[in-house]
Amino acid sequence: MTDGSTSPDARAPRIVAFGGGHGLYATLSAARRLSSDVTAVVTVADDGGSSGRLRSELGMIPPGDLRMALAALAAQTPEVRSWTETVQHRFGGSGALAGHSVGNLILAGLTEVLGDPIAALDTVARLLQVEGRVLPMSTQALQIEADVVGLETDPRVSRCIRGQVAVATTPGKVRRVRLLPTDPPACPDALAALETADLAVLGPGSWFSSVIPHVLVPELLDGLLRTRARKVLILNLAPEPGETAGFSAERHLHVLCQHAPEFRVDHVVVDSASVPQGRERDHLCRAAMNLGAEVVYADVAEDGTHKHHAGKLADVLARLAGRQAPAGYDDIERATEQTVGGRESASWR
Amino acid sequence: MTDGSTSPDARAPRIVAFGGGHGLYATLSAARRLSSDVTAVVTVADDGGSSGRLRSELGMIPPGDLRMALAALAAQTPEVRSWTETVQHRFGGSGALAGHSVGNLILAGLTEVLGDPIAALDTVARLLQVEGRVLPMSTQALQIEADVVGLETDPRVSRCIRGQVAVATTPGKVRRVRLLPTDPPACPDALAALETADLAVLGPGSWFSSVIPHVLVPELLDGLLRTRARKVLILNLAPEPGETAGFSAERHLHVLCQHAPEFRVDHVVVDSASVPQGRERDHLCRAAMNLGAEVVYADVAEDGTHKHHAGKLADVLARLAGRQAPAGYDDIERATEQTVGGRESASWR
Repeated sequence: MTDGSTSPDARAPRIVAFGGGHGLYATLSAARRLSSDVTAVVTVADDGGSSGRLRSELGMIPPGDLRMALAALAAQTPEVRSWTETVQHRFGGSGALAGHSVGNLILAGLTEVLGDPIAALDTVARLLQVEGRVLPMSTQALQIEADVVGLETDPRVSRCIRGQVAVATTPGKVRRVRLLPTDPPACPDALAALETADLAVLGPGSWFSSVIPHVLVPELLDGLLRTRARKVLILNLAPEPGETAGFSAERHLHVLCQHAPEFRVDHVVVDSASVPQGRERDHLCRAAMNLGAEVVYADVAEDGTHKHHAGKLADVLARLAGRQAPAGYDDIERATEQTVGGRESASWR
Repeated sequence: MTDGSTSPDARAPRIVAFGGGHGLYATLSAARRLSSDVTAVVTVADDGGSSGRLRSELGMIPPGDLRMALAALAAQTPEVRSWTETVQHRFGGSGALAGHSVGNLILAGLTEVLGDPIAALDTVARLLQVEGRVLPMSTQALQIEADVVGLETDPRVSRCIRGQVAVATTPGKVRRVRLLPTDPPACPDALAALETADLAVLGPGSWFSSVIPHVLVPELLDGLLRTRARKVLILNLAPEPGETAGFSAERHLHVLCQHAPEFRVDHVVVDSASVPQGRERDHLCRAAMNLGAEVVYADVAEDGTHKHHAGKLADVLARLAGRQAPAGYDDIERATEQTVGGRESASWR
């Protein structure tokens, strides 16, 4: 696939993005600005909403996060836009269909007809003229199980909570999550994409249910350790009510390390405004060092929101991949840069 | 659209086919062999099954018969075949989705997003690479109401039954059907197609719920009276349990005349094996004369079934349209022909 006649920088980077839900949508919206070779690898442990109903009614992998990733990478022509809007559309009312999104039902039908969730995803990808691919982290539906404290009068007592919705909404504090089964097979095409990737991006997203699960799939973790891709971890802009309420940026890194002590990344991308200068940054720097990473501070937020801005994030990813920032995006507020950790910050001024 | 430089016979005929359900599917499977300019005009009074549930839950026109017509006209490439199979696929099991066909749900979603059932149908038609168009007879969902006798101890007492399912399954005898509302607007594009058609085909199908409703829409009846298209009525191969149990071929024509006394057709296509030679054919001939039609006997059945054979029916339609039978269909058992009615039978040996 590599064109030996051009310098590496001239070629669009091959990007593999790991995550789920709105966080992955943000990463993909950025990544597609740099490259038409984007592979999304998506968590499949959701058990709520339309996905949860389809999973339990039809025995399929939960389609919601996969559907959203397809929408993030869909072409922008009028015909495809109608389809994308329809794929994302949720039926209203209070009937049997209420809350189901049309794309989930299409993926369900294609999976039943084609007998293969990957073929179903590729078929919708062609419908939406996706340049790239959307794959599940595992071809089998997974459960998340968590050890949670703070549910008993004795705050030290830990209870086991099962199911993504239950974990995301527990009033207790999540200490550790596990996947069930504990050694699910990774999607082989995801591993293959990782092998030839230039950039592997993890996060942002629901930390315990969309980000950490990727390093809990042994084959995926192994692929992440072995890939020559530059690895980028994108931190959330704010703690998430429920899963990570009250968590500092540093604590996000700590819990990731706890779940996969051997995991390493090259860069941790942090929104400048989300971590004040001073002690907090020192702590974050030390936590990043445990991952072998430097911290890259940049303005990556949409103004006035806790959402990542696709153009700003694309600019950061381009520079971390050693590429020019994508054309057509100019209104980036140049990030406050700071060299932290043991290495020089990537020079992406 | 007409190419003035070629003789009319060299041009593929413009065909408009009126009906619903499996009967219309058969006509369209035949018509597509003759022409890529096929417009299906479909009944929208269904209130049962997946269509009925969507109609009552989402307030849309019942999509089932429209979906089936799209499938009948879908391209035969591998990619489109996967989509067609998925569009036709019904979810199984006993959950909230059981019985829903995926295509009905796609049409529902597109209709909600695009705000227009015709745009939704055209979008699915592009997905399935339909050459031609599928349109509803009316853009508003209709009800069928029937006068039915034989439900009381006094067999002369007539009762009013409402709803297509109720009419189709009544143990009584249907005397007359009405549409509610009684003067629904016809789909304007269906009227436009009829205006330039070469061949207008009505039936086969459920007589009271898929065939007769078309002549009960005043604008459609008017269009059928005014069109210069050759009009062909295709009779069912057998009476239908429920709607037309015990009906002779002749009686099918009588009830059609009763519902629209001014309606005229040019040809009535009857399967040779379905009406024995002799008195029955004389009666059928007289009934056809009331419609201004000749009876065309032909072998149009799939061997050993009560279903029309697409190739055989295409051959008959081609000759009635003054065209060569379509290439690639050779195994027709040449029909027993008989000149009946006031005119010569079309010469389609």
